[in-house]
Amino acid sequence: MTFIPLEPGSPPGPSPERRDAARNRERLLGAARELIEQCGADALTMDRLAEAAGVGKGTVFRRFGSRAGLMMTLLSDAEADFQARFMFGPPPLGPGAPGLDRLVAFGAARIAFVLEYGELARAADVSARNRFEVPAVVLWHRHIEFLLREEGMDSDPWLMAMFLGAALEPDRLLHTVRVRTVSPDRLAESWRELVTRVVRGG
Amino acid sequence: MTFIPLEPGSPPGPSPERRDAARNRERLLGAARELIEQCGADALTMDRLAEAAGVGKGTVFRRFGSRAGLMMTLLSDAEADFQARFMFGPPPLGPGAPGLDRLVAFGAARIAFVLEYGELARAADVSARNRFEVPAVVLWHRHIEFLLREEGMDSDPWLMAMFLGAALEPDRLLHTVRVRTVSPDRLAESWRELVTRVVRGG
Repeated sequence: MTFIPLEPGSPPGPSPERRDAARNRERLLGAARELIEQCGADALTMDRLAEAAGVGKGTVFRRFGSRAGLMMTLLSDAEADFQARFMFGPPPLGPGAPGLDRLVAFGAARIAFVLEYGELARAADVSARNRFEVPAVVLWHRHIEFLLREEGMDSDPWLMAMFLGAALEPDRLLHTVRVRTVSPDRLAESWRELVTRVVRGG
Repeated sequence: MTFIPLEPGSPPGPSPERRDAARNRERLLGAARELIEQCGADALTMDRLAEAAGVGKGTVFRRFGSRAGLMMTLLSDAEADFQARFMFGPPPLGPGAPGLDRLVAFGAARIAFVLEYGELARAADVSARNRFEVPAVVLWHRHIEFLLREEGMDSDPWLMAMFLGAALEPDRLLHTVRVRTVSPDRLAESWRELVTRVVRGG
């Protein structure tokens, strides 16, 4: 996964060639995001991306290695952006609001994120064996734990965070929305009810 | 899945040949359970089962079709037994105790069940696409919803039951116990804390 740097700009500036490569990378990723928006992640192939970006197929493969590599890059960028929002962004998702408000906002943001990128996550084919140890998952699990502690929960907040995090699992949220036709707003409202009861019911 | 019959004994009694077949089936299943207990579900092959039960390999295949079929049969029997316990068994898991006590007991029983049969569930390879629609899962999701309603939760108890049920997902529980070395007692205690807060925090 790509993580947001702790000190932006601290490494020495990139060379012009590096800047060119970065621009090309961004152009390809932009085209990929557009394709996904229009046709869904399943329709994103290396061929189509090459065509859409006006480059050779070889360029796309050299840059991302494989379709799975491309999916992981897209997802990593999206996860890094999501992380930046809940760790450093404006309240109530970011710091500055009470713990419970941040928990409520986190669930709503996560639900929106999964509905936007869930197909991508599935296509990137994170195996069941490691899905609980993916760095992004570990990080937002810690985030829920941190907010529970802030709200005074001292009885095993780590495990409680894991239980609450289970409710936000991509596969489950996607199934609930797509197969059971539950609206994202109704999901977010139930999450609000869940974390409010957990924080206040102690 | 095999379900517990609604009216035991209502169909006409089986013929002697049927009883023989049923006895053979039970003998094979008993041998399979013993093998799993000794060596784990991964070690249970059709060859080993035939050897342990003292029958030809063809008999085992005729009875269960495939290794996956055998796993599903073992799991179905275990699920049916678990269902009988929470629907008709003695309180606090079965009827007769307050809703919250039954919720607490349900989580503890489910955690114990998953730790006993989880390997089997994984080996039966229920695909990610249908894992939320497995009849046994739908049934105990409904059971949690029923108990939440009994405790007076009127705001979307179906969705709340889904969120709570997510905490008891086999893969997650197995990972927490085996990889994160959390004890089953600690899991059950956190479940108790979770459902107590959800019921009382309204």
